[in-house]
Amino acid sequence: MKKTKISIIGSTGYSGKELIKILLNHQMVEIVHLISSTYAGKKLCEVFPEFLNQSDKKLEDINLELITQDSDLIFTALPHTVSMDLIPKLLNQRLKVIDLSADYRLKDPLIYHEWYEIKHKDIDRKFLSIAVYGLPEIYREEIKQAHLVANPGCYPTSIILGLAPLLKNRIVEGENVIIDSKSGTTGAGRNLSFGLHFSECNENFKAYKVIGHNHIPEIEQELSNIYYLGNQDQKKLKISFTPHLLPINRGILSTCYLNLKNLQVKENEIFEIYKDFFRGEHFIRVFKPTDLPEIKFVTGTNYCDIGFKIDERVGKIKVISVIDNLIKGAAGQAVQNMNLMFNFPETTGLIL
Amino acid sequence: MKKTKISIIGSTGYSGKELIKILLNHQMVEIVHLISSTYAGKKLCEVFPEFLNQSDKKLEDINLELITQDSDLIFTALPHTVSMDLIPKLLNQRLKVIDLSADYRLKDPLIYHEWYEIKHKDIDRKFLSIAVYGLPEIYREEIKQAHLVANPGCYPTSIILGLAPLLKNRIVEGENVIIDSKSGTTGAGRNLSFGLHFSECNENFKAYKVIGHNHIPEIEQELSNIYYLGNQDQKKLKISFTPHLLPINRGILSTCYLNLKNLQVKENEIFEIYKDFFRGEHFIRVFKPTDLPEIKFVTGTNYCDIGFKIDERVGKIKVISVIDNLIKGAAGQAVQNMNLMFNFPETTGLIL
Amino acid sequence: MKKTKISIIGSTGYSGKELIKILLNHQMVEIVHLISSTYAGKKLCEVFPEFLNQSDKKLEDINLELITQDSDLIFTALPHTVSMDLIPKLLNQRLKVIDLSADYRLKDPLIYHEWYEIKHKDIDRKFLSIAVYGLPEIYREEIKQAHLVANPGCYPTSIILGLAPLLKNRIVEGENVIIDSKSGTTGAGRNLSFGLHFSECNENFKAYKVIGHNHIPEIEQELSNIYYLGNQDQKKLKISFTPHLLPINRGILSTCYLNLKNLQVKENEIFEIYKDFFRGEHFIRVFKPTDLPEIKFVTGTNYCDIGFKIDERVGKIKVISVIDNLIKGAAGQAVQNMNLMFNFPETTGLIL
Amino acid sequence: MKKTKISIIGSTGYSGKELIKILLNHQMVEIVHLISSTYAGKKLCEVFPEFLNQSDKKLEDINLELITQDSDLIFTALPHTVSMDLIPKLLNQRLKVIDLSADYRLKDPLIYHEWYEIKHKDIDRKFLSIAVYGLPEIYREEIKQAHLVANPGCYPTSIILGLAPLLKNRIVEGENVIIDSKSGTTGAGRNLSFGLHFSECNENFKAYKVIGHNHIPEIEQELSNIYYLGNQDQKKLKISFTPHLLPINRGILSTCYLNLKNLQVKENEIFEIYKDFFRGEHFIRVFKPTDLPEIKFVTGTNYCDIGFKIDERVGKIKVISVIDNLIKGAAGQAVQNMNLMFNFPETTGLIL
Repeated sequence: MKKTKISIIGSTGYSGKELIKILLNHQMVEIVHLISSTYAGKKLCEVFPEFLNQSDKKLEDINLELITQDSDLIFTALPHTVSMDLIPKLLNQRLKVIDLSADYRLKDPLIYHEWYEIKHKDIDRKFLSIAVYGLPEIYREEIKQAHLVANPGCYPTSIILGLAPLLKNRIVEGENVIIDSKSGTTGAGRNLSFGLHFSECNENFKAYKVIGHNHIPEIEQELSNIYYLGNQDQKKLKISFTPHLLPINRGILSTCYLNLKNLQVKENEIFEIYKDFFRGEHFIRVFKPTDLPEIKFVTGTNYCDIGFKIDERVGKIKVISVIDNLIKGAAGQAVQNMNLMFNFPETTGLIL
Repeated sequence: MKKTKISIIGSTGYSGKELIKILLNHQMVEIVHLISSTYAGKKLCEVFPEFLNQSDKKLEDINLELITQDSDLIFTALPHTVSMDLIPKLLNQRLKVIDLSADYRLKDPLIYHEWYEIKHKDIDRKFLSIAVYGLPEIYREEIKQAHLVANPGCYPTSIILGLAPLLKNRIVEGENVIIDSKSGTTGAGRNLSFGLHFSECNENFKAYKVIGHNHIPEIEQELSNIYYLGNQDQKKLKISFTPHLLPINRGILSTCYLNLKNLQVKENEIFEIYKDFFRGEHFIRVFKPTDLPEIKFVTGTNYCDIGFKIDERVGKIKVISVIDNLIKGAAGQAVQNMNLMFNFPETTGLIL
Repeated sequence: MKKTKISIIGSTGYSGKELIKILLNHQMVEIVHLISSTYAGKKLCEVFPEFLNQSDKKLEDINLELITQDSDLIFTALPHTVSMDLIPKLLNQRLKVIDLSADYRLKDPLIYHEWYEIKHKDIDRKFLSIAVYGLPEIYREEIKQAHLVANPGCYPTSIILGLAPLLKNRIVEGENVIIDSKSGTTGAGRNLSFGLHFSECNENFKAYKVIGHNHIPEIEQELSNIYYLGNQDQKKLKISFTPHLLPINRGILSTCYLNLKNLQVKENEIFEIYKDFFRGEHFIRVFKPTDLPEIKFVTGTNYCDIGFKIDERVGKIKVISVIDNLIKGAAGQAVQNMNLMFNFPETTGLIL
Repeated sequence: MKKTKISIIGSTGYSGKELIKILLNHQMVEIVHLISSTYAGKKLCEVFPEFLNQSDKKLEDINLELITQDSDLIFTALPHTVSMDLIPKLLNQRLKVIDLSADYRLKDPLIYHEWYEIKHKDIDRKFLSIAVYGLPEIYREEIKQAHLVANPGCYPTSIILGLAPLLKNRIVEGENVIIDSKSGTTGAGRNLSFGLHFSECNENFKAYKVIGHNHIPEIEQELSNIYYLGNQDQKKLKISFTPHLLPINRGILSTCYLNLKNLQVKENEIFEIYKDFFRGEHFIRVFKPTDLPEIKFVTGTNYCDIGFKIDERVGKIKVISVIDNLIKGAAGQAVQNMNLMFNFPETTGLIL
């Protein structure tokens, strides 16, 4: 069998590294180029000794001509704004692209401008209009046909999956939606910063970007689509979102608070709604109302675990959703998208 | 100067141990009895080598006659329900008592029954009626006169202090109050349990007692008092509260979400309200709207650090409040109460 | 292809659980019985939600008749002394057994008696004489033929692999061998103990069993065999061994200090000796003298990473060896042994 | 009482910050200048919110004239080589100085050159000859008279205190001394480096500077002095030293292995030797042979806890010594030295 040829641009950030780990174990693909401007010329296993005996590949400087000749699919794991410079060139060469940055997630370039404080380059939406938001449990069919997949952010993945069944079935109100999320430090990436120094994070806990975190528009775009059934004329669902930094390496737990529309609804009915919504989804595990997910259940996996409780005294529901931010929140979901785009079994390379 | 004589009943839990640490460094008191049923007969420094060269005291079995003769003040750091058996006997001997359990925090014994699932023994409120809720920033004058102080719970301390100025000044609504708290593991006490095993907590994070945590009635009692000015006829403020377990030893961070009554209010005005409310309070540090507290700022101290941000898009305010659960959340606050009861300078033994 | 049938006795300790994880991903085997006296009757995924969507298997009470009918191979992950009661019965039914306890590691039942403070039941060495010490890099051919494999201890695995090339080639002396090892907390197992409580381990570090740790005789037996070429008449190599408890979940790092015989030897020559010794070994990664292994390089893998430095000033060599205590130090090595016994490719199920 | 006036040059590294914490609580001193080139102009409590409500002091750029006029004592907490530029100027102004760098610890400027790979500026030993090595338990009388105290390194403090009684009493040999030390990350300072990034340190453990750590000459200088009674003609004691990085904030544990001269010596005799050697020392706690120190016993304190075990099988003794690297290993010891130099009670500001 001929293997599908993969290149990764931005191989040595935490997401890039996780992607390599998964792809080295994926039977149907072969890595042809690993691009890293920082470490070009070195072997992957010199930069990360974890890869000793597993890969002899060299990291390379970017050479677009070479990459486009050799590759069937490119993963771009680059900082936002860098992606939108590069990706149109790749698409114009008829390559398929999965972008792990934020550049093609928001449908409206003006909203991008507002939240990222930089103008989007695709103001006429030539590429934005063909980009598919890469959440397979919501957009599976579109992803299968896509040439450009915008891989979702880590917080949005945990939140949209946790709330979609409730919003779709109009069990909850669209107002007073509170989302309190907590993430391990790899979510902040591999760049040095004093706040990520070991003795600053360890034995500490804090909220950050308490107002205006740039995952908000992505969450609101998708939750509004679900709640208002894509009817763009209707008003938009708004959330109050607070991210916090956990002193652990990996994992996100989002605690979501929503007002129930019908105070008579029972936990078992809601459990059935979740099960129906996610029927057949391998990577979603809905917990019975007696149990709740914890971060460690999903560490190192592509699962999203979801649980909930009704808080009768105040007419609210609490939803708790956990993922591994580097896997279902980044590299694993990207591979799940690739499996769909190339018609591989969806779990290939993703189940231990 | 004659030193005030102190005994501690329940000396070897995490709160008891912290209390000993503080009192050994307090110029105006002397520890006369350390009661521990588990370790009676051993020296304190045999059980906790941390106390080597600092105390030669022996742990003793309880002997009420002896204790009541020798002591001016008793701290009880016992499991709830055990306290209410013992404390009436101490009070009847004209001893002053600071109780770190929940037994005398709730004014209404029926509410105690409802949340702790056991009948309160003081159903005619003989002792409940004289107990003062030991939050000095709210009840300083009452504490000075008290014979029985009910030392607040750790979560309630962080939450009541964080929200009192907003509720008192009616800046926020009493509905849709969401409190998402995160605590280090010492909050769960020293008892063995599988969930507190190192490799179960470490690199993990979870919510627990998501419905019905027994700190809720205490928080609602105090917030209602503040919001409805103690007018018991009025309806009661209700909260939605979710505690989570952080993989750190000490510290609580509470993130509180409330609806603003007036959407025009400015962050600086709110800052002034906080500063006014806490003017002269040494142990409360209100952060400017540009900054936010982190757990590490208060670890090992009796401070409660409070910050806030207005979330204009949704008409809410987010309040973040941090304490060290063993100090301002337990032993430190108990000593602050003692200082008030015995007319010592309020910060004695509590500032490093 | 007919799959080999596997049962695990002692499925719910940390090693048993890790074994299940690996075997669920192993193409050539099928788990037929999971035995757990503690959780019999429950589903595996009820005890460990990590296994949701991955296994529907029930945990069972032990039924020897059933197990021996159904299984080709039994893994026993039981406390020592329990294993030696059970294993003779399994062997007598012509089953193959891989034992993760210490019961069949020591060739001499009297030495077992001395270090484990209990009489060995196989005093006439009927089963001890056929047991093979399951370190594939040393005993590969014997393991292929074995009916009973005694899977090595975690500390011994890291130490024997780290020192074998130096001792075999008589680069170092057999006296003044110092081994200072540090292990994550899962090495201590899943049983509750106060010393393994989160807030006792976290932000702490200590030595334990500083004299007389029962992995010493196993290490000395194997190092003596290598150094004295199995000549049992010769004197025995003795080590000074100190284990320490690291506040991490997984991983062992052993720092070994030995006197060089020849002070003129160069680091490159020693590097060649290591490479020769481990030529063709997939799971051993020898580091160049410029680099040194860290625990994180092997976490979650079956690798043993080895590095060394010559300390010229004092005529010593320092060897640093790291493994994941639950994988190469337990379950992974057990599966590597199984692969050899059943003629599967040695890395099956063990490379990500 | 007039307070002694203190300035700190290098106030915002981890040692400087710890020094401020201790001095703010010291009854007999007053901080007059806090020098920080990085943060000059800001308030201390703006850089470290921990100091809110405790100090309103501003950080200043260095102004030697001003400092020398105002101060009785200067603490220099600067990188090595920077100290030796500055300190002669301070001493020439008749100021007393406690230097936390390595610049005045080694008596021989050529040995400094060899290990720090830079020429010492005081090649004629004008200042080196008057510098006193600031280990009060060894040099108390000299420190009382000193104008320049070279505060010991963190590793050397734990090791010299742990071994001095054995070497002084010639219980052990001077050869084959192995020291395996483990330190929390604050030992590496506040500078950003990838290896100290949270997700790189957390759940990891590694050795570093395995050959040639620059604390070795300091340890050998002091241990040789003790063993050879300062007789410089005799040969020098040499050690094999390996530092490791622990995933905790604070604390050092050193495990030392030495050969016993007399194999008949009993643990109780050695215990008496330790007790004699440290009789009257408040900050040294010698553990009975049945117990061993752990890092958490000393975290946040100025104690050095020492324990030991005889390993009869190999004729060795193992000594375990723990300190808090920022207190007894840096700032606390510096204040202990100050107390001696200014004739304050030695424990002032240092006992909780």
